[in-house]
Amino acid sequence: MANEIRSLAFLRANLAEFLATTIFVFLGLGSALNWPSGLPTILQISLAFGLAIGTLVQALGHISGGHMNPAVTVAFLVGSSISLLRAIFYIIAQLLGALTGAAILYGVTPSNIRGNLASNGLHNNVTARQAVVVEMILTFQLVLCIFASTDSHRKDNVGSPALSIGLSVTLGHLIGIYFTGCSMNPARSLGPSAIMGSFTKDHWVFWVGPLLGAVLASVLYNYVFFPQAKTMAVRTAIFLGTYQPGREWEGQGEQRNTPLDLTDSCVFCTSSSSSPTKPFTTSLPSTSLP
Amino acid sequence: MANEIRSLAFLRANLAEFLATTIFVFLGLGSALNWPSGLPTILQISLAFGLAIGTLVQALGHISGGHMNPAVTVAFLVGSSISLLRAIFYIIAQLLGALTGAAILYGVTPSNIRGNLASNGLHNNVTARQAVVVEMILTFQLVLCIFASTDSHRKDNVGSPALSIGLSVTLGHLIGIYFTGCSMNPARSLGPSAIMGSFTKDHWVFWVGPLLGAVLASVLYNYVFFPQAKTMAVRTAIFLGTYQPGREWEGQGEQRNTPLDLTDSCVFCTSSSSSPTKPFTTSLPSTSLP
Amino acid sequence: MANEIRSLAFLRANLAEFLATTIFVFLGLGSALNWPSGLPTILQISLAFGLAIGTLVQALGHISGGHMNPAVTVAFLVGSSISLLRAIFYIIAQLLGALTGAAILYGVTPSNIRGNLASNGLHNNVTARQAVVVEMILTFQLVLCIFASTDSHRKDNVGSPALSIGLSVTLGHLIGIYFTGCSMNPARSLGPSAIMGSFTKDHWVFWVGPLLGAVLASVLYNYVFFPQAKTMAVRTAIFLGTYQPGREWEGQGEQRNTPLDLTDSCVFCTSSSSSPTKPFTTSLPSTSLP
Amino acid sequence: MANEIRSLAFLRANLAEFLATTIFVFLGLGSALNWPSGLPTILQISLAFGLAIGTLVQALGHISGGHMNPAVTVAFLVGSSISLLRAIFYIIAQLLGALTGAAILYGVTPSNIRGNLASNGLHNNVTARQAVVVEMILTFQLVLCIFASTDSHRKDNVGSPALSIGLSVTLGHLIGIYFTGCSMNPARSLGPSAIMGSFTKDHWVFWVGPLLGAVLASVLYNYVFFPQAKTMAVRTAIFLGTYQPGREWEGQGEQRNTPLDLTDSCVFCTSSSSSPTKPFTTSLPSTSLP
Repeated sequence: MANEIRSLAFLRANLAEFLATTIFVFLGLGSALNWPSGLPTILQISLAFGLAIGTLVQALGHISGGHMNPAVTVAFLVGSSISLLRAIFYIIAQLLGALTGAAILYGVTPSNIRGNLASNGLHNNVTARQAVVVEMILTFQLVLCIFASTDSHRKDNVGSPALSIGLSVTLGHLIGIYFTGCSMNPARSLGPSAIMGSFTKDHWVFWVGPLLGAVLASVLYNYVFFPQAKTMAVRTAIFLGTYQPGREWEGQGEQRNTPLDLTDSCVFCTSSSSSPTKPFTTSLPSTSLP
Repeated sequence: MANEIRSLAFLRANLAEFLATTIFVFLGLGSALNWPSGLPTILQISLAFGLAIGTLVQALGHISGGHMNPAVTVAFLVGSSISLLRAIFYIIAQLLGALTGAAILYGVTPSNIRGNLASNGLHNNVTARQAVVVEMILTFQLVLCIFASTDSHRKDNVGSPALSIGLSVTLGHLIGIYFTGCSMNPARSLGPSAIMGSFTKDHWVFWVGPLLGAVLASVLYNYVFFPQAKTMAVRTAIFLGTYQPGREWEGQGEQRNTPLDLTDSCVFCTSSSSSPTKPFTTSLPSTSLP
Repeated sequence: MANEIRSLAFLRANLAEFLATTIFVFLGLGSALNWPSGLPTILQISLAFGLAIGTLVQALGHISGGHMNPAVTVAFLVGSSISLLRAIFYIIAQLLGALTGAAILYGVTPSNIRGNLASNGLHNNVTARQAVVVEMILTFQLVLCIFASTDSHRKDNVGSPALSIGLSVTLGHLIGIYFTGCSMNPARSLGPSAIMGSFTKDHWVFWVGPLLGAVLASVLYNYVFFPQAKTMAVRTAIFLGTYQPGREWEGQGEQRNTPLDLTDSCVFCTSSSSSPTKPFTTSLPSTSLP
Repeated sequence: MANEIRSLAFLRANLAEFLATTIFVFLGLGSALNWPSGLPTILQISLAFGLAIGTLVQALGHISGGHMNPAVTVAFLVGSSISLLRAIFYIIAQLLGALTGAAILYGVTPSNIRGNLASNGLHNNVTARQAVVVEMILTFQLVLCIFASTDSHRKDNVGSPALSIGLSVTLGHLIGIYFTGCSMNPARSLGPSAIMGSFTKDHWVFWVGPLLGAVLASVLYNYVFFPQAKTMAVRTAIFLGTYQPGREWEGQGEQRNTPLDLTDSCVFCTSSSSSPTKPFTTSLPSTSLP
């Protein structure tokens, strides 16, 4: 576990998550300010959030996986694709990035235009329970799309993963902005609320809803629709960050026919052996060597 | 036939159709509610319906084919790509999904905002006959696009099938919303009308138009533009769910050079032999073994 | 030459051009009617025209090349990719298709909503000369994009040809609608003007502008940027429809290293030898056999 | 160095940069004119700029790299992908192209509609310092997306590079139009200001902001996230235009395992050996031959 932290790839991945979330939050919120010359339309804002995710997954997804979202990171953890340690570091990087992105936007925007910096909140008499269900479903379809678009077991034509994921975010906003301003992402909700001090009593909705939807999608995709032949020992090792592909595992001699599986945590992995995007390659040695 | 039902892949496929149609109807109708802060524009609604189909084909198409539409399922049946049994089960799953999606949306939407939950109906003095033709043409272009985008015989660059299919749905809505609210899909029309009790005397238009267009597109694509060397015996076996690729068929000894054809029923099939997406592999043994 | 006409593939290709142009014109014009409930926006219309081209290139491009536009067909003729005979037949099919599409739309649209059926015309005091230049540049970028997206000599990642071509049409409309209603395509201009009897004295603009732009793009792409080693004899044979790949040509014994070139006329050719999309394979035998 | 200039490929590349920038500026500015029948919306303009870049990268990117932007060219220079000479020629071609595109638009647009030809300027009380930061971040995400989309070291699925790059430009405009009219590109800012004589005292913002963002993205991508094993000698030779792949370099005998790297300057390189898009192949011989 300690080894994973010390690797350069781990450092780069966390830097990428921080940077990507910073820019995502800056661009997303920045598309929804209170311009006197004409308020941005729902469609504009929806496209800006979606294209921001799409562009940043394209630009940095092969370094960190391009999560930019604690709910997505938790979904990958539940799917046995990343270690607990990586998940914790990613989430911290994402939250710091969201705060930074919102702070930069605050700094570059004239004060009369800031509004509440596109903070999330319940609109139009929507109740907290209704909002949780909406946020859950919107995040569910996003996370399902992410798993399907980056599934290394698929041999068929998935087109452009970055674009599909981005448009899934746009889709969510086309429905969700009316209900809640659309979160689907606790980090995106934290950023402007913290910078503007605009937390409402319903802020928990934007943590519970997305996390529920993401976990549900991960369970459904990884355990119901595409159950993989990972033993409990392998899952535990991935969770702890001690998994090491390419060797006999735990002395049990089972056939691991899913080594590629471990690259799931990075959306766009290169196949070169010196790739900085392969996690787990510096982990602890297994107990039984050939 | 009974064997097909008992397979895990068949169960998963039907669950995927139910789930995908539920979310599609929830998102599509959810983009077209009566928000007091500003009605959604035609373009917004068109993009939401299209991106919903695109995202769900991307997310679940490799499990069930991602039909989400009885007209599409009938088109695949007519094209000798799925069995009658599978078609019936899919359509039931789709109709149940549409009801569920509309019901969930009803539950999470404040009552003053529901309107008629985006039920389909004839607008602007359009007659039922005119509406049937419009729905027929719109569904025709969609089904033609689906067959072309998922044709396993094509070796050329089809880009992203999910995105092309989704944008074809958006295209249909840009024209159809004005005429009929745009159905192209009997399940999508059934859902809100059943939940709101808003059936009109023209509701049949949304079954006849899409089904006519879909069957026409299937006949044209599969029998005129790309006629395949399937014998009547093979077609009958596929229809009955007793077809078994990789063996001599019906003792006639003909050369079957289109085994890949049978994966047509699933949009995104993986090439691994244990793929859960290959239908027909658990069917009855053929009569003449080598 | 006579042989090419008699082939089934030639028949299918012409049917595909007719059908595709019919649906394209129906959908494009149909997105721009005079709805009393709110006129379609420029962006809506631009997306509808572009997505219609994109969807139909995806759906039928592998059968005929998906031109749907006399200017595009002339560009392929100039680029030595199709025979004169094929060009003439395609253009006739396209013009008939445009008339059919406009007529169907006329029939299904209530009379108070038809307006001028989105006929092209000069707007906002734009002069005919200015309009010709605008139409020329808009068609130039489209045809350049078509050649680049379907260039069988490119080994690199061109993404989705159908989508790129469609979005290039959308791009043209975002600028051109204000100037001329945006043609880029003589067939699209002929259809509504003929059905509504709304020809203006500037109708020639929509033939001259697009044709000039298309020819210019073809010359630039095929003779300046990517000159191909086709001898004059080969070009003449392609023009006459007597070219036959895979044999010595005209007894001159030159090395033809661009046989794949001949598939240019079809956007999405399959690599199977029995492909119905390979033109020229039924042409006259060459004079010198090995 | 002199050799590079004399090659036909170099000439074609510069012609492509000039032509692409001309059309890009014509289309981008042309989407934002002062039409009395209704001003174009922010979303329309954003899509036009983005689709123009996307279409032209698709159409001409395999000839020159499709920069159309001095900031992008400088980023490639900083990333050791092109020679100083090529960078200078490209930038001259881009600036000439921008002037030409703006001039043609001026000529075809009725005078009452020209407005300021979509010149860039600070809006809504935004200060120059704020504008620099916004332009920097917007260009940063674009250049990062360009490097990632055209990185020849990536083996994974990047979808459509042209579309991803174009949508990244659209994204920038959705935020930037409100602040500055959105430049991200000094050539795009120069064109209309020079033709209309509408330079403001803040015009420097549109050079400093984009250049800062582009250099920052290049350094981050090429030296932090994906550092490549280029020696200082190789980098210097690329800079001077004397690099020659496939031979021992500078007599030092180091293992160059990144020859493909040199095709970075062209977005879409074909793999054929006679490709006109491979720069550097006509450069000076190295000092130590085997």
